[in-house]
Amino acid sequence: MHDEGMGLMTRDKGQLNVGLIGTGFMGKCHALAFRAAPAVFPHLPKLNLATLADIDPDVARDAADTFGFAGSTSDWRTLVEDPAIDIVAITSPNFLHQAMAEAAIQAGKHVYCEKPLALDAAGAKAMTTAAEAAGVKTLVGYNYLHNPAIKLAKDILDSGEIGEIVHFRGAHFEDYLASPDTPFTWRSSKAQSGAGVVADLGSHIISLARRLVDEIAAVQAMLEIVVKERPLADKPEDKATVEVDDQAQMLVRFRGGATGTIEASAVAAGRKMYLTFEITGSKGSLVFDQEHMNELKLFRFDQGPSRDGFKTILTGPTHPPYDRFCPAPGHGLGFNDLKVIEVAHLVDGITNGTPLDPDFRSAWQIAEVVDAAIRSDAERQWTDVNDVRS
Amino acid sequence: MHDEGMGLMTRDKGQLNVGLIGTGFMGKCHALAFRAAPAVFPHLPKLNLATLADIDPDVARDAADTFGFAGSTSDWRTLVEDPAIDIVAITSPNFLHQAMAEAAIQAGKHVYCEKPLALDAAGAKAMTTAAEAAGVKTLVGYNYLHNPAIKLAKDILDSGEIGEIVHFRGAHFEDYLASPDTPFTWRSSKAQSGAGVVADLGSHIISLARRLVDEIAAVQAMLEIVVKERPLADKPEDKATVEVDDQAQMLVRFRGGATGTIEASAVAAGRKMYLTFEITGSKGSLVFDQEHMNELKLFRFDQGPSRDGFKTILTGPTHPPYDRFCPAPGHGLGFNDLKVIEVAHLVDGITNGTPLDPDFRSAWQIAEVVDAAIRSDAERQWTDVNDVRS
Amino acid sequence: MHDEGMGLMTRDKGQLNVGLIGTGFMGKCHALAFRAAPAVFPHLPKLNLATLADIDPDVARDAADTFGFAGSTSDWRTLVEDPAIDIVAITSPNFLHQAMAEAAIQAGKHVYCEKPLALDAAGAKAMTTAAEAAGVKTLVGYNYLHNPAIKLAKDILDSGEIGEIVHFRGAHFEDYLASPDTPFTWRSSKAQSGAGVVADLGSHIISLARRLVDEIAAVQAMLEIVVKERPLADKPEDKATVEVDDQAQMLVRFRGGATGTIEASAVAAGRKMYLTFEITGSKGSLVFDQEHMNELKLFRFDQGPSRDGFKTILTGPTHPPYDRFCPAPGHGLGFNDLKVIEVAHLVDGITNGTPLDPDFRSAWQIAEVVDAAIRSDAERQWTDVNDVRS
Amino acid sequence: MHDEGMGLMTRDKGQLNVGLIGTGFMGKCHALAFRAAPAVFPHLPKLNLATLADIDPDVARDAADTFGFAGSTSDWRTLVEDPAIDIVAITSPNFLHQAMAEAAIQAGKHVYCEKPLALDAAGAKAMTTAAEAAGVKTLVGYNYLHNPAIKLAKDILDSGEIGEIVHFRGAHFEDYLASPDTPFTWRSSKAQSGAGVVADLGSHIISLARRLVDEIAAVQAMLEIVVKERPLADKPEDKATVEVDDQAQMLVRFRGGATGTIEASAVAAGRKMYLTFEITGSKGSLVFDQEHMNELKLFRFDQGPSRDGFKTILTGPTHPPYDRFCPAPGHGLGFNDLKVIEVAHLVDGITNGTPLDPDFRSAWQIAEVVDAAIRSDAERQWTDVNDVRS
Repeated sequence: MHDEGMGLMTRDKGQLNVGLIGTGFMGKCHALAFRAAPAVFPHLPKLNLATLADIDPDVARDAADTFGFAGSTSDWRTLVEDPAIDIVAITSPNFLHQAMAEAAIQAGKHVYCEKPLALDAAGAKAMTTAAEAAGVKTLVGYNYLHNPAIKLAKDILDSGEIGEIVHFRGAHFEDYLASPDTPFTWRSSKAQSGAGVVADLGSHIISLARRLVDEIAAVQAMLEIVVKERPLADKPEDKATVEVDDQAQMLVRFRGGATGTIEASAVAAGRKMYLTFEITGSKGSLVFDQEHMNELKLFRFDQGPSRDGFKTILTGPTHPPYDRFCPAPGHGLGFNDLKVIEVAHLVDGITNGTPLDPDFRSAWQIAEVVDAAIRSDAERQWTDVNDVRS
Repeated sequence: MHDEGMGLMTRDKGQLNVGLIGTGFMGKCHALAFRAAPAVFPHLPKLNLATLADIDPDVARDAADTFGFAGSTSDWRTLVEDPAIDIVAITSPNFLHQAMAEAAIQAGKHVYCEKPLALDAAGAKAMTTAAEAAGVKTLVGYNYLHNPAIKLAKDILDSGEIGEIVHFRGAHFEDYLASPDTPFTWRSSKAQSGAGVVADLGSHIISLARRLVDEIAAVQAMLEIVVKERPLADKPEDKATVEVDDQAQMLVRFRGGATGTIEASAVAAGRKMYLTFEITGSKGSLVFDQEHMNELKLFRFDQGPSRDGFKTILTGPTHPPYDRFCPAPGHGLGFNDLKVIEVAHLVDGITNGTPLDPDFRSAWQIAEVVDAAIRSDAERQWTDVNDVRS
Repeated sequence: MHDEGMGLMTRDKGQLNVGLIGTGFMGKCHALAFRAAPAVFPHLPKLNLATLADIDPDVARDAADTFGFAGSTSDWRTLVEDPAIDIVAITSPNFLHQAMAEAAIQAGKHVYCEKPLALDAAGAKAMTTAAEAAGVKTLVGYNYLHNPAIKLAKDILDSGEIGEIVHFRGAHFEDYLASPDTPFTWRSSKAQSGAGVVADLGSHIISLARRLVDEIAAVQAMLEIVVKERPLADKPEDKATVEVDDQAQMLVRFRGGATGTIEASAVAAGRKMYLTFEITGSKGSLVFDQEHMNELKLFRFDQGPSRDGFKTILTGPTHPPYDRFCPAPGHGLGFNDLKVIEVAHLVDGITNGTPLDPDFRSAWQIAEVVDAAIRSDAERQWTDVNDVRS
Repeated sequence: MHDEGMGLMTRDKGQLNVGLIGTGFMGKCHALAFRAAPAVFPHLPKLNLATLADIDPDVARDAADTFGFAGSTSDWRTLVEDPAIDIVAITSPNFLHQAMAEAAIQAGKHVYCEKPLALDAAGAKAMTTAAEAAGVKTLVGYNYLHNPAIKLAKDILDSGEIGEIVHFRGAHFEDYLASPDTPFTWRSSKAQSGAGVVADLGSHIISLARRLVDEIAAVQAMLEIVVKERPLADKPEDKATVEVDDQAQMLVRFRGGATGTIEASAVAAGRKMYLTFEITGSKGSLVFDQEHMNELKLFRFDQGPSRDGFKTILTGPTHPPYDRFCPAPGHGLGFNDLKVIEVAHLVDGITNGTPLDPDFRSAWQIAEVVDAAIRSDAERQWTDVNDVRS
């Protein structure tokens, strides 16, 4: 159960032991965040980088050495079962999330899992059920939610400054699959990725829509496979058929009545991190894009037509937790800093009981939107999103 | 028939006589354009401003004096039947377009009509049929199509520079109806406007989608009435129920297979002329918005990842017909200049037989998209767009 | 004398007769403006396009026909001495301005002259003296001053909204001389242009600095000739030595104590109409560039650090005289529209006695700044600007 | 001497011991960077956070605990003389830099000092002389130079892609002193700060000008004190006279002949991190501002006037060392990441002998530009910059 990990915390109040699975893009990102968080956020306990797992033992050992983990393993099961570990962070390919998380939950660990949570909503549901039964804390890596600019957007919306939300126009476009020469990987396989860009990037913009607007009640989606086949990585003269969408678009209706569109693409030439939204309220608007992650554009009808316009607010120390990183405005956070905030949020949840969001249940709700989109596309009709509220 | 107008042209090759109906926003815009066009485009014949019609005879007379029309009338029928007039320009409220255009066609006039062409596709069809039977030239005032930046976009697309189009993300957002205190007008009445923002602004972004991408084959639309009632203009303490949409969103599938989203809103706080699109091709992308009408953003995968990026092209004399207005790049055209280009296009069609686009048939096709959107919204299902090709 | 022109006005209150010298870029721009102004501004009298002069009689005749002038001449002296003409508009090369203007003044005409007024401050002084002695109205073509966005900037500054001005950072950069293959023209000749870019473009940004901040009291300038020789137009294998600056930069001190920098370049690769300023006040800032001529960026410390930012105000009908062109905000004016406003300003000055700015005296003050910059560069020292206040 | 520190390196090849002085804004920034660097850059040796010094022993102890330093001290002399320490990082107020650095040098430590290096050029010279005599490595914290976007700019310039540089227009504007209510601090004291914004922010833009263009040979400067008195921090009803500039502007001439302007302001309302430059070359241009630190705008005359424009390049893994932080383009680095790169540069210099830039001698050259600006302002004349090349 959870006793062992928490026992450790009792033995040494000031420390949590971290086990990290994965050494790739997200693995490194997590490692950097665990290293930085206690220095950025002085109220946090120490985070002891205990064990790093990678299927290749040499990679695991080298990465552990680089990232400052005390030990390494090529067997993630060893890691998740280690009684000394409090937090298991999972950054493996999507199809491994569920087994790893469930094993960690069974061992009583708090689980910090990269997104999307599982291959489908059923998987997310199972993970949620297990975690809640075990009473462990969970957090899913929708890091863009932790941007001070997004927290500012949320504050503005909650304050009523721009009135009632009437429209959401969101997208997450990148071009990592734009070239037809990009090889076939697990991302193009239905079995290994579960879904295509609707899940990979779509889930990010869905997570923002939920956070800022409301839960999505129904969708009408259209999913496309733009690049229909790709060369095999190890035998480029052969091609494999792409099985999942690389371009997705949907109409959405929120529970409270607002409507809008959500799109995702991995073939949007020129877009690198175009996670963007335009939120229209009855008294104003917000515009954001992650390529300019340190600014939020705000329009309010509040100083008369000769003076009103979209205002570009640069984040600064009045937009927490920017102040933890820098006391001067406009200096700017980076992508990796968002993960540091996410880790601090996770640790606050573990040590103080701060509600974690998105926890597994929230991520399950996101997965239900993705699933509804897939069904809607298949059936060419408006499709209700299952409501996962407990 | 058409004889009288064309007879005039025979009598005096170098001149076309213009009758204009309407003295409001668009009436003034047309008047300025007819005045300017022959000076901007030296190849054009003279345009004689013959008669200006407004329902109020004093307004008609004053406006005729201001705009330089030789005569005025409060009876548009007099104008359209005047044998001396070659071109009838219609800028009246939407519900009058059809009757005026049909009368002008019957009198053999070339007809230059503001958009949307009619209250619905059936009206547009009737007008098209009449005009084609009469052999008169027609043009509909989708002025944004005449922007040199849009012609540049079309050139880039036609050249194959950005490959095959895979996605269109378009919108036309303004906020002229954002305030709930804005009174009820003919625009909020189903009988007088035919449809709401899906037709008023939606038709602009549809016209751009058609021009740049392809014909739209099917839509799945969601139309909303955000502000549900409005005060009466003459009795503000009373409210009338708004009958047409002020916010529209739709998924679209083009005939050739590209897909995307199209949205329109008259309640998008802060947006004044946000007619915008992002076109993704297999080798690059284009981004435009009419609030920056003198620039086009172009991305191409052509100089390597360390040098590629969205390029902001300022229009200039290499982007015709910018050169007719100014020999120096980056100086910028304005909204009213687009109408001057439109008038020149019209006159070229009349005098040289240049194909006019969008003529009534094209505008009918646009109206079919709008009608399909309305049906789709009512039936909550994917709806094919009628194909109006002759 | 002046009687004839004004006599004409008496004979026909509602009309002013215009003679225009020059058919090039600025000639066409003036012609379009004279055609449009009375329709855009209904309060104006009729503007009768009487005579167009060009040194080539065929060009003059064709242009007169195109632009709608009643007559043409190849002899500008005929035009300026024609008793029927009220306004003489001068768009010839710089070295001809003085002789033409003085002849027109002697004939009692109101003179509307393109910038820079003369080849040097001495010339500008002579022209000013002549005009003021004759009592004619004068206006110099610093068209960017007439932008509604600039009027908005002036309103904001005058209102005290951004406090006391402490700094001006201005530039006018273009790249029309960036290519070393661009031939030698009168613009590169000291005798014919008087000065280089410091006068050609520098005078524009100086005109904005004066309008918005204050008179410039002293300058410290550095003028450069970046491209040192250019091919002859008719014999490209031969090169001529460029005699005037194509890049200028100066420190400035305003009379009231504010300071700043002003720069001009004709070799700024990629800049097409980068007439730009950043004005810092004690309570806020303004930022503008002419490539986005329909917007002004405003910062004010007025809603707290978590909400303050630069606001992009799109011009609209609340920013006169935008409303004369269009009743809807954000639709945008173009370069040529500024000349229409300028012509209206001229005519208001003639018919209503509205003070004209920049008249010859103001343009003389601008010329004194340019002259001071040239002396400062030569002597490498701070140089006071002559004060031309009468 | 230096032996001890290097001896440590010999004892344990894989580790350098770090002593950090200061726990404020820059102290935390350094601490985070030392923690992160070995994980971001796997080739680096371990960096052992040995001792943290702050004048307040409690602050020192708490910060050491938070940042992960093994020990703390309230006496910086203890730190710099500790034989176990290899690197001394100095983030104290400017007036302490020299004494601390000289003591550290005397103890044979490598010195990593925040900018500006000393209170004046004489101080910088003394520090340089001492460091070079001792043979220690030095680096000064001009962190913006380490931005991958700046390295990209340097690559573009070195490649000749935009030809020969003809103009530099640079500024560093912030508004941290814009409010007259901001109290008097050491920054407003001549004795403690040496100079005002010309040194504080001016040195940053000077450092970029040197890196990208050339050494500055001569300046003509104008320094202003905009806010002339400020309240005392502990007795706000009393005011102290500000002794140093808060707004600076200068003309500059580079050794190779290029010219331009450099400005700095701490009272530029609305600017938070507006460290910006426009570099004009004979074949293109570069534009950058630190508020958008992850992008560089590039113009080249290379695809014809109908396709040329400023291209916004988002940094990515093809722009090293961005790839060390993230394998995907456009995700963005933040302010603190630049310090991580700076630390890696420092360590490379220590362990591999990579030339460090800006070392003390380079920073001395920057100080000479600042000193020349101060003299130029006082004497109101062009002033040559001392050349510090050894």
